[in-house]
Amino acid sequence: MRFELTILGSGSALPTSNRNTTAQVLNVLERFFLLDCGEGTQHQLRKFKVSFNQIGHILISHLHGDHFFGLFGLISTMSLVGRERPLHIYGPKELEDILSHVLKPQFDKPPFPIVFHSLPEDEIGIIYEDKVVTVTAFPLRHSIPVWGFKFSEKPRLRKIIPEKIEEYSISIPEINSVKSGEHLERDGDIISNADLTTNPLSPRSYVFMTDTLIMKKYMDILKGSQVLYHEATFLHEDVKLARKTMHTTAKQAAELAKEAQIENLLLGHFSTRYKSDQLFLDEAKAVFPNTTLAIDGLVMSWPENNSEFSIKMSSSAKE
Amino acid sequence: MRFELTILGSGSALPTSNRNTTAQVLNVLERFFLLDCGEGTQHQLRKFKVSFNQIGHILISHLHGDHFFGLFGLISTMSLVGRERPLHIYGPKELEDILSHVLKPQFDKPPFPIVFHSLPEDEIGIIYEDKVVTVTAFPLRHSIPVWGFKFSEKPRLRKIIPEKIEEYSISIPEINSVKSGEHLERDGDIISNADLTTNPLSPRSYVFMTDTLIMKKYMDILKGSQVLYHEATFLHEDVKLARKTMHTTAKQAAELAKEAQIENLLLGHFSTRYKSDQLFLDEAKAVFPNTTLAIDGLVMSWPENNSEFSIKMSSSAKE
Repeated sequence: MRFELTILGSGSALPTSNRNTTAQVLNVLERFFLLDCGEGTQHQLRKFKVSFNQIGHILISHLHGDHFFGLFGLISTMSLVGRERPLHIYGPKELEDILSHVLKPQFDKPPFPIVFHSLPEDEIGIIYEDKVVTVTAFPLRHSIPVWGFKFSEKPRLRKIIPEKIEEYSISIPEINSVKSGEHLERDGDIISNADLTTNPLSPRSYVFMTDTLIMKKYMDILKGSQVLYHEATFLHEDVKLARKTMHTTAKQAAELAKEAQIENLLLGHFSTRYKSDQLFLDEAKAVFPNTTLAIDGLVMSWPENNSEFSIKMSSSAKE
Repeated sequence: MRFELTILGSGSALPTSNRNTTAQVLNVLERFFLLDCGEGTQHQLRKFKVSFNQIGHILISHLHGDHFFGLFGLISTMSLVGRERPLHIYGPKELEDILSHVLKPQFDKPPFPIVFHSLPEDEIGIIYEDKVVTVTAFPLRHSIPVWGFKFSEKPRLRKIIPEKIEEYSISIPEINSVKSGEHLERDGDIISNADLTTNPLSPRSYVFMTDTLIMKKYMDILKGSQVLYHEATFLHEDVKLARKTMHTTAKQAAELAKEAQIENLLLGHFSTRYKSDQLFLDEAKAVFPNTTLAIDGLVMSWPENNSEFSIKMSSSAKE
């Protein structure tokens, strides 16, 4: 029942030897979402051993090249390795036309079903939902239209205490109703649900916000999220430049995480103008201690049962 | 006076860890031509320490993704690092429209002058010429329109023997006429040009042919070329598949090199279906011994003066 994020690219517009342009894969209970797809994302998927075919959904935050120029090559490669299952792409409406122009010379018709979903303009909207997860898009503010995304696991059923099933000879239909929170009746007595079950794992969630001025209007979306990825293109000494280029500073992102009571803040999209990325970490930690710098190959796993939040490097990151 | 080729990507459609998709840089006397530009070419340029700004001309052989999907990111990066000088792009006519669609969201207007040149359809044509080099495009045969390219150094002036300048007090205007092959007159006598000069270096040339059925009709173009790069997607055991997919086998490429009396054959674009690339080399060498397999980072330098042909790996290839 994994809820796991793999960073494929953590840099800003100029790729460097250890930070490719933006791309992440989020695995929500074996549904794989690719968030942004900078040039070279197919190389990073291969490097970090993420199966191309597992990816069912690609979400593109905006149409600056460092967030989507890898989409064309990834689709071509998916075709070459024999993909047949549909691919859902969510992005600014102009992306559909761009894709068709770029791919037209090599494909008379789409090599496998590609379902394009335009992101909702100027409003918050659910863009994907199934029985375990809801994905919400919400507009951010940058030099061109850009969206943030929230992935929310749906509330789970209560966990029945195994010994109680035998003790009260609970039938399968009764198990389902007890898991839903109902009490049990035995010989005219009511056995309280609290005596039969324990609390389920709290729904897990992830918020992705990149290439935006700092925005504090989405507290309702952020509150209760365990992890926020936020861009931090600049240090706060360059806050004027951040405003001018419509980006965020590490300090601003940390303040947002603190105010929204996020558990873990993940920063990325660092400008290459500074001498060390450690400066971003120091600046953010002064405001919000539980900050981590994204790096290509980092894998973050949300806790399950009584386990801890895990942040480690992919085993293939050092190859 | 370098004439030097650097292989940036030597693979076919699926990039692997040591062979990226097609791209090469040819330096002809400090004019830098980029031949094809698969996804990740900007990463390879950086890896092999080729300056982005030096590249004046980009030639795209055809519109399959593994030959041009890196163009968008490279242009974006050139803009970010402050390029101002014009960039000339030569490609199938549809490429101009594709470029404008893809780059439109991030650039209101081109970030630096981009001059697009459509390749001549169904005929051989000179696409670039200056005082030292001529570049010719010629149509090949693949599933979509594709072109080969020839780079020919122009004949050089004869080399004047330094001691003769003093001996005959040759003036500067006379030096230029002697270099052009004329005789010298002194006191009514004719001093033969052969006594004053030595032969110049023979003009150097390079032919690039990728993604094509084997074509023997271009012997006039090939004859006298020192180096031919040819695709060898398949081994000859799969010649039927090569015909069906409109590619070439290693043996066919070697036979072409032999018939055209090429000096050096460089093979690339290998299918990943075979267990070792050595098989391509063995097959080609049986027909044409002077064959080399292209590999990312390989640098081939044409001889100058009395030096030898040099084939070595870029010093940064192993980093």
